[in-house]
Amino acid sequence: MAIAALVFDVFGTLVDWRSGVAREAARILGPGIDAGAFADAWRRRYQPSLEPIRSGQRAYVDLDAIHADSLDEVMAEFGVAGVDPQTRAELVLAWHRLDGWPEVGEALARLRSRYLLAPLSNAHVGLAVALARRNGWHFDAVFGGGFSRDYKPKPALYLDAVAAFRLRPDETLMVAAHSSDLAAAGQLGLPTAHIARPLENGPGGGERRPSVPTTYAAADLADLAAQLGC
Amino acid sequence: MAIAALVFDVFGTLVDWRSGVAREAARILGPGIDAGAFADAWRRRYQPSLEPIRSGQRAYVDLDAIHADSLDEVMAEFGVAGVDPQTRAELVLAWHRLDGWPEVGEALARLRSRYLLAPLSNAHVGLAVALARRNGWHFDAVFGGGFSRDYKPKPALYLDAVAAFRLRPDETLMVAAHSSDLAAAGQLGLPTAHIARPLENGPGGGERRPSVPTTYAAADLADLAAQLGC
Repeated sequence: MAIAALVFDVFGTLVDWRSGVAREAARILGPGIDAGAFADAWRRRYQPSLEPIRSGQRAYVDLDAIHADSLDEVMAEFGVAGVDPQTRAELVLAWHRLDGWPEVGEALARLRSRYLLAPLSNAHVGLAVALARRNGWHFDAVFGGGFSRDYKPKPALYLDAVAAFRLRPDETLMVAAHSSDLAAAGQLGLPTAHIARPLENGPGGGERRPSVPTTYAAADLADLAAQLGC
Repeated sequence: MAIAALVFDVFGTLVDWRSGVAREAARILGPGIDAGAFADAWRRRYQPSLEPIRSGQRAYVDLDAIHADSLDEVMAEFGVAGVDPQTRAELVLAWHRLDGWPEVGEALARLRSRYLLAPLSNAHVGLAVALARRNGWHFDAVFGGGFSRDYKPKPALYLDAVAAFRLRPDETLMVAAHSSDLAAAGQLGLPTAHIARPLENGPGGGERRPSVPTTYAAADLADLAAQLGC
């Protein structure tokens, strides 16, 4: 096995979605809400909201549309009323304004010297590009939801990325902070790397180690780069 | 109209395919053939070979497969016989080893400070990435043949790129050295920029100016960057 490319989950793995969404919610909605809990409630609706698309009951819509749909429920839960359409659209853009975990930029630059790099996220292309631009990251291509018009952990997401790079599965390392994502990739023959993100969910914690067998397990992305000899 | 992204044709517009393919053909097949004419003959088969896919008669195959198909005819035309499969595969990779026109790298870096940038070529993702890596170019995403699984000038190629960036057509500038490409983009509402490439086809010349109305017409990519105020 000679790895030629690294493909990355983004939300939680490369960016700290909770701090960013909470910051934007507080900025836009004011100090009256518990912004961290607001971010958690929004995120909690994320995986269930993708199910109708994964199962083929609903045609593909991108993550901005998914986030806009679930925002209404979250606002109702927090007693936020009378929000105009422009403010709602601004809130959805919170997911475009997330900062990377501190070590990510330098680690990606090191990895880029030896490997092809691409996000393999449920984000659509414009969203993945916005996050890369905001954080100064340089990818070779953008795979995931927007490329395959479906959502992880559907096999097409992983296999489309491998095929687009003209690689074999065993040459493409899937990097994620979530064991379920790595399990799906591993079943397709991709090597896998788990990144510990104990702060992903704030007080709710995050995965400190994988709960499934993985090729690598790293304390953060810099640790993975070191393990790969970069 | 406020342009937010530039999308680029690649073969002829950003890279000098003729010199690169001729160099590789000479290296691989030896001095016995007219390498420039070999490159021309191969390129001449390019547009006709895409027609069955554009018309829906043939399922999408990528440009490596297209180039491999037509290579047999070109070798027969030049009396090249007894070429083993490994050498044939190496010849197909000539199209991955093309150098940019001299001003392109610096011009792209200038344009990148203000605009999103992506190739919008008939190349598949792996091929577009190989050319970008070889030349040190930095794009935000990769659109075109591999993204849309079809070939220009089919409308989906242009419209998929616009939609993936979440832009409107009038915010997305199509940049090409070929009037036919710009005509197709312009019909869909994209502004267009023609780049003069008088040496594209060697002694066969190249378009010195557009033969259709365009938003911009530039002497090279540095001239376009200057016209855009970068």
